[in-house]
Amino acid sequence: MPQDSAPSLLRDTSPARLTEPSAEPARAAYDEAFDWLDTACAERRDAGLVRTLRPRPADSPLLDLAGNDYLGLARHLEVTRGAAQAAHRWGAGATGSRLVTGSTELHALLETELAAFCGFEAALVLSSGYAANLAAVTALTAPGALIVSDAGNHASLIDGCRLSRARTQVVPHADPEAVRAALTGHDGRALAVTDSVFSVDGDAAPLPALAEVCRTRGAGLLVDDAHGLGVLGEGGRGALWAAGLAGDGDVVATMTLSKSLGSQGGVVLGPARVIEHLVNTARSFIFDTGLAPAAAGGALAALRLLRREPQRATRAVRIAQGLHERLTAAGLTAVRPDAAVVSVRAPSPEAALAWAADCRAAGLAVGCFRPPSVPDGISRLRLTARADLTAAQLDRAVGTIVATAPTG
Amino acid sequence: MPQDSAPSLLRDTSPARLTEPSAEPARAAYDEAFDWLDTACAERRDAGLVRTLRPRPADSPLLDLAGNDYLGLARHLEVTRGAAQAAHRWGAGATGSRLVTGSTELHALLETELAAFCGFEAALVLSSGYAANLAAVTALTAPGALIVSDAGNHASLIDGCRLSRARTQVVPHADPEAVRAALTGHDGRALAVTDSVFSVDGDAAPLPALAEVCRTRGAGLLVDDAHGLGVLGEGGRGALWAAGLAGDGDVVATMTLSKSLGSQGGVVLGPARVIEHLVNTARSFIFDTGLAPAAAGGALAALRLLRREPQRATRAVRIAQGLHERLTAAGLTAVRPDAAVVSVRAPSPEAALAWAADCRAAGLAVGCFRPPSVPDGISRLRLTARADLTAAQLDRAVGTIVATAPTG
Repeated sequence: MPQDSAPSLLRDTSPARLTEPSAEPARAAYDEAFDWLDTACAERRDAGLVRTLRPRPADSPLLDLAGNDYLGLARHLEVTRGAAQAAHRWGAGATGSRLVTGSTELHALLETELAAFCGFEAALVLSSGYAANLAAVTALTAPGALIVSDAGNHASLIDGCRLSRARTQVVPHADPEAVRAALTGHDGRALAVTDSVFSVDGDAAPLPALAEVCRTRGAGLLVDDAHGLGVLGEGGRGALWAAGLAGDGDVVATMTLSKSLGSQGGVVLGPARVIEHLVNTARSFIFDTGLAPAAAGGALAALRLLRREPQRATRAVRIAQGLHERLTAAGLTAVRPDAAVVSVRAPSPEAALAWAADCRAAGLAVGCFRPPSVPDGISRLRLTARADLTAAQLDRAVGTIVATAPTG
Repeated sequence: MPQDSAPSLLRDTSPARLTEPSAEPARAAYDEAFDWLDTACAERRDAGLVRTLRPRPADSPLLDLAGNDYLGLARHLEVTRGAAQAAHRWGAGATGSRLVTGSTELHALLETELAAFCGFEAALVLSSGYAANLAAVTALTAPGALIVSDAGNHASLIDGCRLSRARTQVVPHADPEAVRAALTGHDGRALAVTDSVFSVDGDAAPLPALAEVCRTRGAGLLVDDAHGLGVLGEGGRGALWAAGLAGDGDVVATMTLSKSLGSQGGVVLGPARVIEHLVNTARSFIFDTGLAPAAAGGALAALRLLRREPQRATRAVRIAQGLHERLTAAGLTAVRPDAAVVSVRAPSPEAALAWAADCRAAGLAVGCFRPPSVPDGISRLRLTARADLTAAQLDRAVGTIVATAPTG
């Protein structure tokens, strides 16, 4: 069936509206229950912190330095074809929990190839990276256990800690000695939890030192490598591979299929007994429909492309470093990137918002991180270095960011 | 690009393995941290409660009465084509949070059509029904608020309650007077939370009575209509439409795109100010990559198909009722279905497991719910009535279930 002759989803050519009921059911106000939302909304407005969705067209004219499509694979023909093929072959949805009807041979294959590529014994694919983090944190702890959590960790790790009902001790950012101190004296199960590359500033966790500390205390180490897969390690095998920790018996990784792999979903990687335990106990895995075949197929196609073209990973990091150099040379304050995220400081939430808006008006999409999404309260522009950016695009991006920068 | 000539995803024809590194990084044991998992695994084995994944082929020979594809749309050509088209047009992934680059016009269109169809002012699509429930429960409560939660609620609502850090009072199943008692005396924000159709037994919540109780106490009502959309209400508009509550100012619904709509994802529907609040505060929305375009496109195609062919919804319920009648006439204990789920009691977890295995050996896939996935500890077979089951398939299903039933 040729795709191009099929009607666009954006035009509803079906006679469906004719079947809408002629009268809607009676509506009543009953508004009181949620009246407090108006106050919350006004407070957001007064604080300049209102977020709105801005749906983009399929062919946006904006130059994108805001998304997490680090390798430029989300729109790559091999990847979109992998997604489309999987929908045709396996259906639009998985039809149930992975434990009931939702596991296909496609999921199993993706898990096998992800584990082999990243150097782990086993892998488990979930519907999102958020779900993967909830699964890993909750299944590997319990009430009575201790979680030692980096202050800069991603929200999904934090929510996993909250959901686990374990005791969580938050330690200063990227500080193995603080982890050591937190673990000292705890008797029983313990898990240290960290991002590999922190999503806000793009800096890397000291993984070898953290693993060393965990080992002296018998604690497990859970690393969210969402921003490392496809970017760090040999051919993009991730931060744990780069640190020589992939596959170790006390190390568990979570990753996303929605960043470097251009698709959707999350994965937990680790020893086979950890994965078996998640299958049996992780509620965000058990009580969720399996990842859609198209997402699994897209991710699998992207993984194979990355394996064939490992230079994509190196290029993303090199571009990030080049961006950092040029922006700091222009007088801006940017964090030296350890991966593909470049964070540029803004003097205030309002200035960050205006800066991002000015970039957008000039045709450049950049991320804008403001409270409450930033743990330290510092607002910044967040740039992502895609491996497929051209020299001309980079020139344009740097020029725009510098020209629109807040003065003073 | 013709789909059929492209290599199958299940055969890896790429030369990628040649680029695998020749030596793996040094592995060490470091096993102690997770040694406790072996004990947990042994306990599961001794209790007969081990779950394993059983990946299915694309063309399974099994007759499926286990999945949640109530309308048989997951493999419908219009739906798979909608998914594939969206992947080609919009990419394999959304590339970022809905608040950054992850909102497309396709998401916005799906939200508009879902809200209009189900009779709500606004809608917000998330990557899963689990994420939608976390978002709705946490955003509509806060520490200090009261949540009144039905004892039979789905795990994702329960996890939402845990994550909210509000005070949660669990009340007896489907008991509006218990909800009234729980709300009485609470001063401040309150939210009653319930499934519309309970996933284990397939029975319906007393929604009109619950709404009445909430209104006398100024509480909001959050209803998970995962099993109602596409099945209940005029043309499958859901349980809240059926109850005349859709669109009311104090009512919020969550639904999945992965059951009747045959795709993946979740949606929250409610007053516009509720949706605006979720966009600004719901962590499982903000800190998650947007739903993949293919999943949005598949769900949209399924929604339009349902609008055009509303009889699909009626047929699913009629088939469930027929199944129930024939199974009880054969002497089995089954709960009278209010929607498309038929629950059949088994005398023990072991008997349920053996029964489901015998069905499978005879070519029939049925769900098997055992502790700890069932709140009351009762094991059962769980059958789902797909609208596209033929009379011959139903005869075969009933014959197999009865013939393999535990004796005594």
